[in-house]
Amino acid sequence: MSLFEELKIILGPGGLLTGTDVSSRAAGVWRSDSLDALAIARPRSTEEVSQILALCSENGVSVVTQGGLTGLVHGADADPEHLILSLERMRNIEAIDATQRTATVQAGVNLQTLQEAAEEQHLFFPLDLGARGTATLGGNAATNAGGNRVIRYGMMRDMVLGLEAVLADGTIVSSMNHLIKNNAGYDIKQLFIGSEGTLGVITRLVLRLREAPSSQNIAFVAFDNFESVTTMLKRVDRDLGGALSAFEVLWNNFYRLVTEAPANNQPPLAGTHPYYALIETQGNNDELDKQRFESILEYALQDGLIVDAVIAQSATERRNLWAIRDDVEQTFRLGTPIIFDVSLPINRMEAYIADVRSRLDKALPQNTLWVFGHLGDGNLHLDIQTSAGDAQAHRAIIENAVYEPLKGIGGSVSAEHGIGLEKKPYLHLSRDPQEISLMRTLKNALDPRGILNPGKVIDTTQEDIG
Amino acid sequence: MSLFEELKIILGPGGLLTGTDVSSRAAGVWRSDSLDALAIARPRSTEEVSQILALCSENGVSVVTQGGLTGLVHGADADPEHLILSLERMRNIEAIDATQRTATVQAGVNLQTLQEAAEEQHLFFPLDLGARGTATLGGNAATNAGGNRVIRYGMMRDMVLGLEAVLADGTIVSSMNHLIKNNAGYDIKQLFIGSEGTLGVITRLVLRLREAPSSQNIAFVAFDNFESVTTMLKRVDRDLGGALSAFEVLWNNFYRLVTEAPANNQPPLAGTHPYYALIETQGNNDELDKQRFESILEYALQDGLIVDAVIAQSATERRNLWAIRDDVEQTFRLGTPIIFDVSLPINRMEAYIADVRSRLDKALPQNTLWVFGHLGDGNLHLDIQTSAGDAQAHRAIIENAVYEPLKGIGGSVSAEHGIGLEKKPYLHLSRDPQEISLMRTLKNALDPRGILNPGKVIDTTQEDIG
Repeated sequence: MSLFEELKIILGPGGLLTGTDVSSRAAGVWRSDSLDALAIARPRSTEEVSQILALCSENGVSVVTQGGLTGLVHGADADPEHLILSLERMRNIEAIDATQRTATVQAGVNLQTLQEAAEEQHLFFPLDLGARGTATLGGNAATNAGGNRVIRYGMMRDMVLGLEAVLADGTIVSSMNHLIKNNAGYDIKQLFIGSEGTLGVITRLVLRLREAPSSQNIAFVAFDNFESVTTMLKRVDRDLGGALSAFEVLWNNFYRLVTEAPANNQPPLAGTHPYYALIETQGNNDELDKQRFESILEYALQDGLIVDAVIAQSATERRNLWAIRDDVEQTFRLGTPIIFDVSLPINRMEAYIADVRSRLDKALPQNTLWVFGHLGDGNLHLDIQTSAGDAQAHRAIIENAVYEPLKGIGGSVSAEHGIGLEKKPYLHLSRDPQEISLMRTLKNALDPRGILNPGKVIDTTQEDIG
Repeated sequence: MSLFEELKIILGPGGLLTGTDVSSRAAGVWRSDSLDALAIARPRSTEEVSQILALCSENGVSVVTQGGLTGLVHGADADPEHLILSLERMRNIEAIDATQRTATVQAGVNLQTLQEAAEEQHLFFPLDLGARGTATLGGNAATNAGGNRVIRYGMMRDMVLGLEAVLADGTIVSSMNHLIKNNAGYDIKQLFIGSEGTLGVITRLVLRLREAPSSQNIAFVAFDNFESVTTMLKRVDRDLGGALSAFEVLWNNFYRLVTEAPANNQPPLAGTHPYYALIETQGNNDELDKQRFESILEYALQDGLIVDAVIAQSATERRNLWAIRDDVEQTFRLGTPIIFDVSLPINRMEAYIADVRSRLDKALPQNTLWVFGHLGDGNLHLDIQTSAGDAQAHRAIIENAVYEPLKGIGGSVSAEHGIGLEKKPYLHLSRDPQEISLMRTLKNALDPRGILNPGKVIDTTQEDIG
């Protein structure tokens, strides 16, 4: 029997896509190229995933697992000889337990679908990111997604209580823990979180839910120097007593880009300040939360820590302030910019951005560098474009300008997007040879034939040790 | 040259202890037996640890790493042929960064020493447990310690940003990340956290600090049924908007044991209720925090969710309420009880405790079962004694009564204490054969000769698969 015939038996009617059913699909939601792969297998259960992997393992066929294809680092790219494993038919929310505050889901469930299902039970799944309507929870776990509220709730890793994964040889490791505390042996779920599908295929998850917040306060504030930004972060984190849920910073030219025409958003504050922040709290007492939030801002205005501020007075105004922060698409006006996702110590940020700017100006005089990000987490996004809109043509120069200065200051080439194929050449800037060697030990131990998402994150030979 | 001679050269004067310098030391801070081992090596640096492990690896000598010896599961027991690696000369706090909010420490630093050093910088290291004065941060990491404030700040795993570890062959893996977000490849530090010294020796750590809370509110409340306990947990978690920092529950007979003579603590509430809870908040606004806390308690009293309550009005009263919860030593009056540390879904707790009680009563009519714990985390401690004080003689019966009913309800035989030697026979109740097999794959990949803390957590043969 051929591989396809065996796969069809495992997967049932409609389970295997080939030919134009593959090539008519986009390679990613923000990409113009198409999928090119052996076939797309669409299992409905962990058991089917197990059978597929056992078969592929026997036949030496490599497997690329795909979720919502919203990744930004070519972490789920397939080659023509790869079998794509799509979890699009594994979209069941199996259970939501309001007392234990857990959700049990198949890995193909969308982030937003879970957010809404939790809300119906007066609960809250705190992971949030722009691709919420498309990104899957399995993908969120495989890439350890971050997003807007890490400062309060942590990353996806912190929300996964248990998971089920299938190893390269088809072994099902079901570690569907529902407990916040469980020190019964090694915490093996950690292996599969953030390893981008290279160590196993996550098929089901137990996720931690929180009580739903009912009050929300948001302000947009302006600073006249960077030191005030970091001081303000410390102060609000301290004085809000656990209620701080976002501290997002926008550098001046990004703020102006997203609040001046042709952008749709109106500027809440004058465009003359070097730094702006969106500060959000979540709580459950409208009156007391508001009182506390306003008094902190008032005090910061009085002592000059912030130089201007506006507080949203309604749900619409809150949405509008978030829309400013989220209108990253404005950086695409001239064509796709080069997008970075770095993290670094907060007290190095100002000098780091100056360094990158100077390197870019030397190499590419007509560049624009937009900076914004999750400052509370030490995570900045840098979007870089040239006046001719041809940033992609200068990718290597731009990447070097951004990544090289990270090495000396303990920065990371990937805060939340992952490594995939795109950042693999730069992994050695953030991880030393012994760390990469240990990653390789894990890869070889769990996937000795190298059939899972081959080539992503690390090479199984020595060549990625810089 | 003999092994001892080589070790002495590596360690310098006073670095190697042998003979009575070993046997005069207790095997644990709460134990009456003495250490019995080849020798105690006391390195001063990661480099020395590396040299020792390389040497032991070459010579097939097993190594047991010891911190403060405050563990409860025989996780750091040494045999006569083992070399003890004690981190007692690695006690430097290398740096505290108030902006980045990190501490860089050697693994032998005491928990309390770091807590105090953080406090001096108006920062807060939230891990807290009774053994704080003796337990080391390396031990806290190796065992993924929990303690009293997990509900707000997570376990030790959530506080470790980076670490340095030495592998069995002496390779130093320095992964001293200072960043909250870092998705640059596999998160290899997770391997060493909670694996009880079996995969590597943690020598240094980067720990996340928080802004110091300045306001604290504590109440002791009483319930007349268990459902009210779980409803109250949800309510305070929701209405305190991130400020809840502990929710500790005491079953009736434990409450009476620790508040009636000969115990020193006075009962804050009548001893007639089936369940009590200590509820704590941490914040930074005395007035608003108090107002919110009191209004939540008042409402809970009005609608009958709690039947009595007392709120501490001073730092002394707050200490006194914690002293009640922490006076676990009262269960030692008749001799050492059997101590358990289980976790299970909250809505199964009432039936589970009834089940354990019934099994105990059948097997050992004169038993006493005290129950208390971190209910907010699903973590209960059960201390069990017989009227003759000979619980230890009935260990197997008692362990079976506690552990067997966990299997059917997704419980864990160890919430926070770890597995060590003591709970290894019961690991299969909480982890299935595929999970244990994957743990073994990791052990074999990282420590192929099995020289690191041998026999702890899992056996490297198949026999612990139940």
